[in-house]
Amino acid sequence: MFDYRQYKRGYFMPPVECNDWVKKEYIDKAPIWCSVDLRDGNQALVEPMSLEQKLEFFKLLVKVGFKEIEVGFPAASETEYVFLRTLIEKNMIPDDVTIQVLTQAREHIIKKTFEAVKGAPRAIVHVYNSTSLAQREQVFRKSKEDIKKIAVEGAKLLKELAAKEEGNFAFEYSPESFTGTEPEYALEVCNAVIDIWEPTADNKCIINLPATVEMSLPHVFASQVEYMDKNLHNRENVIISLHPHNDRGTGVADAELGLLAGADRIEGTLFGNGERTGNVDVITLAMNMYAQGVNPELDLSNMPELSETFERLTQMKIDDRHPYCGKLVFAAFSGSHQDAISKGMHYRIENDTEHWTVPYLPINPEDVGRTYDSDVIRINSQSGKGGVAYVLEHNYGMIIPKKMREDLGYAVKDVSDVNHKELTPGEVLEIFEKRYKKYTPVFKITEVHFRQIDGIQTTVTIEKDGEKINIESKGNGRLDAVSNALSEYFNHNCDICCYEEHTLNNKGSESSAIAYVGIVSDEGKEYYGAGVDHDIIRASIDALESAMNRSLEKAE
Amino acid sequence: MFDYRQYKRGYFMPPVECNDWVKKEYIDKAPIWCSVDLRDGNQALVEPMSLEQKLEFFKLLVKVGFKEIEVGFPAASETEYVFLRTLIEKNMIPDDVTIQVLTQAREHIIKKTFEAVKGAPRAIVHVYNSTSLAQREQVFRKSKEDIKKIAVEGAKLLKELAAKEEGNFAFEYSPESFTGTEPEYALEVCNAVIDIWEPTADNKCIINLPATVEMSLPHVFASQVEYMDKNLHNRENVIISLHPHNDRGTGVADAELGLLAGADRIEGTLFGNGERTGNVDVITLAMNMYAQGVNPELDLSNMPELSETFERLTQMKIDDRHPYCGKLVFAAFSGSHQDAISKGMHYRIENDTEHWTVPYLPINPEDVGRTYDSDVIRINSQSGKGGVAYVLEHNYGMIIPKKMREDLGYAVKDVSDVNHKELTPGEVLEIFEKRYKKYTPVFKITEVHFRQIDGIQTTVTIEKDGEKINIESKGNGRLDAVSNALSEYFNHNCDICCYEEHTLNNKGSESSAIAYVGIVSDEGKEYYGAGVDHDIIRASIDALESAMNRSLEKAE
Repeated sequence: MFDYRQYKRGYFMPPVECNDWVKKEYIDKAPIWCSVDLRDGNQALVEPMSLEQKLEFFKLLVKVGFKEIEVGFPAASETEYVFLRTLIEKNMIPDDVTIQVLTQAREHIIKKTFEAVKGAPRAIVHVYNSTSLAQREQVFRKSKEDIKKIAVEGAKLLKELAAKEEGNFAFEYSPESFTGTEPEYALEVCNAVIDIWEPTADNKCIINLPATVEMSLPHVFASQVEYMDKNLHNRENVIISLHPHNDRGTGVADAELGLLAGADRIEGTLFGNGERTGNVDVITLAMNMYAQGVNPELDLSNMPELSETFERLTQMKIDDRHPYCGKLVFAAFSGSHQDAISKGMHYRIENDTEHWTVPYLPINPEDVGRTYDSDVIRINSQSGKGGVAYVLEHNYGMIIPKKMREDLGYAVKDVSDVNHKELTPGEVLEIFEKRYKKYTPVFKITEVHFRQIDGIQTTVTIEKDGEKINIESKGNGRLDAVSNALSEYFNHNCDICCYEEHTLNNKGSESSAIAYVGIVSDEGKEYYGAGVDHDIIRASIDALESAMNRSLEKAE
Repeated sequence: MFDYRQYKRGYFMPPVECNDWVKKEYIDKAPIWCSVDLRDGNQALVEPMSLEQKLEFFKLLVKVGFKEIEVGFPAASETEYVFLRTLIEKNMIPDDVTIQVLTQAREHIIKKTFEAVKGAPRAIVHVYNSTSLAQREQVFRKSKEDIKKIAVEGAKLLKELAAKEEGNFAFEYSPESFTGTEPEYALEVCNAVIDIWEPTADNKCIINLPATVEMSLPHVFASQVEYMDKNLHNRENVIISLHPHNDRGTGVADAELGLLAGADRIEGTLFGNGERTGNVDVITLAMNMYAQGVNPELDLSNMPELSETFERLTQMKIDDRHPYCGKLVFAAFSGSHQDAISKGMHYRIENDTEHWTVPYLPINPEDVGRTYDSDVIRINSQSGKGGVAYVLEHNYGMIIPKKMREDLGYAVKDVSDVNHKELTPGEVLEIFEKRYKKYTPVFKITEVHFRQIDGIQTTVTIEKDGEKINIESKGNGRLDAVSNALSEYFNHNCDICCYEEHTLNNKGSESSAIAYVGIVSDEGKEYYGAGVDHDIIRASIDALESAMNRSLEKAE
């Protein structure tokens, strides 16, 4: 039954207005990142990772630069337990990395967790219980006081067991389902836990506020975070962590606004894997900072490798439109976008700009291992002359004259429009060559001789309907002379409106030139041709030949 | 080069603080929805849609309930032009739907657009030009004054041409790349356009503020929108529209906070298709309102059909974690989540709750055409007893006793943990049957006779090592008598700690009973068995037989 009246807002506003965060404009410093890929991410997979896969993923996280990694819920399954033991016993945890283990606030689970973590040089023990109204009423059927007691007893047991064990333990507490909990009550429970742990400057504790299920607009979440930030006991020795999910599609916004509201730390995953709609995507968060000139403190330069490893190990597929890493996120098919990008790239070189400002590209795709060739300017029926010219320049070194671009653009669009398909650079080149090079349905120029007497005199030999004809003419220059010859013989206007020529592949004696020639017909229409030859004169004559052929053909 | 120092914030703050919106908590009314699937969505596809595909997509949008649909950029390609003519000439536009066409603010494109739209009963003509600092400098190389002139000339031409044509025309103007434009300048240009159009209460105009590229945190975008809202000329006759993209992964947040900041209308697409990271997803926005008890004014009840049609026509794939519609967004693999959902569902029935409050499920999956069977409780190595019991109850009508669930849960987890795979309900049933039904490695009960004398007297015939043995015993009840017989014969404790029985498939004479029996061994350990039979006594004896076999096997 599709009826909105079954629903109501399930969250609670802080008892006082907490909107100071809105005055902060941007995030000026990366938070402490904690990856929960191996726990929250893993538990949301259709097929959770095997031991070997988890080990490979762990190495990937270390390589990216995570310093805190939640490695699992060791009391929950044999694989999780063995994975943790392997990391510890094989000394696979680098000195600057701290592992984190999750446990419910239940005695036997906490005890099993401490067994699992034995021998780890450092660990964050993360204890949680559910505090939301819905869970108190429906799942636990307990009072606020009883639920708080679960948290407090758990906190005490952590402290007690940690005192007995060797190794450095830090503590983290999550009022799970925080977003469905009354903020005053969440505060009461968290403060009770802090009062047990008595964190100090040298031994801070973490209070993690999960948007277990996203329930409100992101600014409401930020105001809940600000309320906690302003009222937690011993705040200077508490690290506020956020753990957003993405049920409303605003997980990134929750994290960002929550950081403005006072949070210090983010728990999230690569590419936003995780329960249901996923955890917040650390890659997007980090790249959002990067794109505003803030050090993200993660190395995401090799995104294609990251993506490949992630997809292989999790069997999840990264969406084609996933920010900063999807297959299509740098693609420009539309003509106006291609034109702007192309101009922006030229502007950047001409002006040697300090900062990246190219339109339609939030970052330089090359920063994250992508290429302009295959990822940016792509040609289909939506594309325009700018994009086509860009593709030919970028792939084949051909600098199509401005005046010629519209004619070429329409020719390419016609093909992709009719075929409803994207065109590869090779296919674009083929369209160019078919249209402009050696196009001789009416006549061919077989020989040309020049004499430099009183300007340039020429004898042009053409082949038409199987016959060879010599035409004599003259002009100011060689191309002009040939144009005059053709114009006079065919009694058809052949004024040159466009002529450009450049080296094509500059490899010593192998180098050749490409010439582009446009002519105006009697009716004022423009026709274009191109020619490629080792000899620059022959290249331009070939270009003229094609242009004249097309003009004559249209006139017939 | 992965270096954040190449970047800077590319947006501009309003000249005065505009944060009144933050005091509004939620969106209480659906905006005017405008689909731009057939334009912005289509132009971002690797293979843009054909005429037939566009027609099918148009019908889908109408069915969902869009009243404003941007159908294309008719001056940009032949397919777009023909599509528009087909809609008009075949009378395919319902009376309550208005089509919208996009045009750059260039004379020949505006003229071609009016040709394309000839004969339409109603149309919104949407004219735009780029106003950002980057585009002014890099692409157009024009001053602020000149760029404003482009907008003003375009606005004038729209008014002039509309006056000449039959039909009802409404006007929309977009300062394209608004997010990279100084707010004061965007305001100046928009006000100049409004002054030309002179909108009235009967003929409002639309000012559309595109986040062409997302550049700021979403609250900054909201403050930019609020600035425009507070300063636009003739505000009461202007509809403020937003057109967010998703480069920073916060397109939904932009739209939501922008609506709080005064916007009236949203341009977006189904499933967030569109340039690069996509346009804002109208489905997520609408469902976010729905989940808070607000009428979304779109019918999204048949999400599977919507998804299928979308994927087929666009050749895009909807992400498995896409809010409200991805394959995994209602899935619960983890034990604690399954348990909470299961309890929440029971609570809902017991208490006949007015509003949906089930933990971990933002909405009832059935509202959008999903099923609990295949989409919600799913079993793998992360799952617990609650989920396993739920699957057996939901699929096979088996109500596993509370005491027996842990034993079953571990048995299932072992299989999925070792095999690293998700288990179907059928596979879970198989594990149950193999473990609990007709489990007779030690002995079989072949015959049982009862006499009702002084309580219940029994003769139990068992087969053990190929021999048949008759055992005599008695008890308070039949099951008790058999238990005593076995206990005495094997000299092994067989106290019944759990017994539950219920009808299994209630189809007249075909109906049978399932019994679950748990016994406590000498060492205090519990062992379970189950039996299914038309006869309720035989079912319970079978259950006892399996439990006793397992207990004896462990003791040996």
